[in-house]
Parts: sequence; structure tokens; C-alpha cells
Amino acid sequence: MANPSIELLAKELREFADERDWNQFHSPKNLAMALSVETAELLEHFQWLTEEQSNFLPPEKLEQVGEEIADVLIYLTRLADKLGVDPLKAAFMKIERNREKYPVSKVKGSAKKYSDL
Amino acid sequence: MANPSIELLAKELREFADERDWNQFHSPKNLAMALSVETAELLEHFQWLTEEQSNFLPPEKLEQVGEEIADVLIYLTRLADKLGVDPLKAAFMKIERNREKYPVSKVKGSAKKYSDL
Amino acid sequence: MANPSIELLAKELREFADERDWNQFHSPKNLAMALSVETAELLEHFQWLTEEQSNFLPPEKLEQVGEEIADVLIYLTRLADKLGVDPLKAAFMKIERNREKYPVSKVKGSAKKYSDL
Amino acid sequence: MANPSIELLAKELREFADERDWNQFHSPKNLAMALSVETAELLEHFQWLTEEQSNFLPPEKLEQVGEEIADVLIYLTRLADKLGVDPLKAAFMKIERNREKYPVSKVKGSAKKYSDL
Repeated sequence: MANPSIELLAKELREFADERDWNQFHSPKNLAMALSVETAELLEHFQWLTEEQSNFLPPEKLEQVGEEIADVLIYLTRLADKLGVDPLKAAFMKIERNREKYPVSKVKGSAKKYSDL
Repeated sequence: MANPSIELLAKELREFADERDWNQFHSPKNLAMALSVETAELLEHFQWLTEEQSNFLPPEKLEQVGEEIADVLIYLTRLADKLGVDPLKAAFMKIERNREKYPVSKVKGSAKKYSDL
Repeated sequence: MANPSIELLAKELREFADERDWNQFHSPKNLAMALSVETAELLEHFQWLTEEQSNFLPPEKLEQVGEEIADVLIYLTRLADKLGVDPLKAAFMKIERNREKYPVSKVKGSAKKYSDL
Repeated sequence: MANPSIELLAKELREFADERDWNQFHSPKNLAMALSVETAELLEHFQWLTEEQSNFLPPEKLEQVGEEIADVLIYLTRLADKLGVDPLKAAFMKIERNREKYPVSKVKGSAKKYSDL
């Protein structure tokens, strides 16, 4: 396989949908819904665990969680592709903004949001 | 900047959290919650739009949506990093499984799930 | 059965959890997660439907949706009970505030949020 | 005010939407999305709290959480009303089923789901 990347993932997902004639279902609205559903399936694995337990998942559970992470990335990539958004570029830009919003000197050890600082 | 990739994003997010002493908040359980919250902020942009409208977002809206996509990717990458999961590898493996579950000959033009086929 | 009400539902859920020694899992944090998960299971039924189709669910689907609505109400009631919040009272108060935020003369036929008016 | 109930809430929400000509936006699909968004706003309050902290919210936070609970109940009631589902009846039926699925003798003190028993 070529070097795995989000671009390649987007391309494969595009072909996957084209081959199945699924573009009719893949409006950004619907893809955002599917993304939410997959995220909740990920969340479900953690709902009754303590935070401590969530740090040490047994192998079988970790594999299931990995599959849900895959589904979330798949729908996120598909949605971004449909909208013409580059998700990695957007993420790195967001980190830059977050560096300004949450300067180390102000927020160290605090989970307060910017608006509360 | 080095070639942007999920690995690089994971590394920057690790440093970002370390510098701010935020690892105490970043249990997988909490990160899965934050991921859900960000996904819903993305969903919110689409809730009252028609599917057709969701295909043609005005530029300002598209930029806001792009920021939410960034946030989702950030928390997904952070969660996967904490769990030692490679999200791209997991996604490509999932596509392989989906090719078997949803063969073109069976599902073309249908949104029915595998279980309903 | 006594007249069904949210108070009675809260009482039955309290007994249900007490009998099973499940209060240890029912922190408000966990209940809010479970509520999110159930809401997504409800959402899942609608993700690939058109808005029009969502208005005319076949009986079997409607029954499944009804069960998810039940689950959402169950976790919402349980969470509110744990926090000492009266959900109906809070809802009626919210409607009053919404009457002021969204006066008929300003918003008729528009889905714009207050902040955009 | 008449005795507050979900029926009365449904009636007020119906009138609220009718007066504003908002039924065009209130397809079950869209209402399920709005419900998810509100649930996530509730979840957001808990994402960085420990379970212990979530049991003891400060008054101001509790009030904000109460408003989100109100929003969730509002959209859930509106959705159920649109679909002709009686949410309380569905919830009490679900409790009956859960009594059979999770008998005290089998699940006491365990958060395992039925499928794992």
C-alpha cells in the first residue's frame, strides 16, 4: 500500500462510495450525523469505566475501541472531503490559535476554559 | 513545518498537554467525552439545514465547520495516541472489512446496513 | 399503575438501581455519558433517511425509535433525579425564556438563532 | 399553570412552533439532531470533572446543567409528539423489559450489559 495518509483515505472512501452509488446518502448533513453516531459508539465503551480503568483497557476491548476510532476517522475524512476541507491543515491552525488562547503561564494545571480565565 | 501528518499532530498535542500539565485531565474516558462534544458542535451547524443546503455552505459557515472538523480530529488523535492506537492503520483495515461486508453487487444504491441485507 | 409521571419514573429508576447496587456506576458524569449514547442510538435511525421519510416511519421502525426515546427519557430522568433537578419545571421555565428570546414578530418562519437575529 | 406534565409540555411546544411557523424545520430527523446537540451541551459540563466532582456541582453550574436538562427534555418531547410516541409509557414498558433482562440475582453490583452476562 502507498504511504497511508488522510488524503489516501479520502480517495479510497470516495471510490468506495462511488462504486456503491452511495453519494446520494452522503450529504454533509447525513455524514455529520453518522460521525456523531460513531463517536457515541466509541463513548459507549467508556461510560461505566472509571477514568483509571479507561487507561488500562484489556486487549479485546482495546481492539473494539480501535475499530470505533477507525469509524470516526472514516466519517470525519469523508465529511471533510465532501466539504473540501483539509482536516490536518485545519487542526494545525487550531493548535496555533489554542497556543494563544491558552498560554502556558495562565492555564498550567487548570482545565478552565479560556472564557473562564 | 514538517510534512503534516497524524503522527506529527499527535506529537504536537502531546507537547501541548505536557507543557500545560493537562495530562491529569486527559484520561481516555474524558477525551472520548470531549470528542463527543466537539462532534456535536459540528452537527449543530447542520441541524436546521436541508441536505441540499448542507452541500453548499456559505464561506463563513464553511470556515466555522472547518474549525469544528479540526477539533474533532484533534481529540480523536489525542485519544488514539493515549491508547496506542494508529487511527489511519485502523481505518484502512476497516475499509477492507467493509469491502467484504458490503460487496458492490449486493448493496449498490442501497443504504441498508449489512445486518438487513 | 399509579398515574404515570416523571416523578414516578424517577422513583422506579431509583429502586431499580438500589436493588442492583448500581448507584456506584450512576455518577452524574456517567449518566450524562449514557444519555449521550442513547441519544445517538436514536439519531442512528434517522441518519440515512430524508427528512420526508423521517415523517413516515414504518411501524417496526417506529417501535424501535420509541424504545430509544424511552432510553433517553430514562437516563435523563435518572440524571435529573441524582442532581435534584425537576426537569419539567426547568423545561417550562425555559419555554418562558424562549418566548422572550424568539418573539413571534421577529422569527416567524426563520430558523436563525437568537444570536443571529 | 395547570399541573405540569409531559402532555402539557408537548402542547405548549406545539403552539410555540406553530406560532413561529417552525414546523417546516421540525422533521423528526432534524429534531433528533437537535436533541443530540443539546445532550452534548449537557455532557460538556461534565467532561473534565471527576465522577466525585460531578456529584457536587456548585450552584451556578447546577443551574446551567438544569437548563441543558430542560433543553434535552424539550427536544425529546417535541420529537416524541411529532412521532405520536408516548415517552412515559415507553419508559415504563422499558423498565419492565429491563427487569427481565437484568434480574437482581444476576447483575447485583455489576455494570456488565445483558449480552455479557
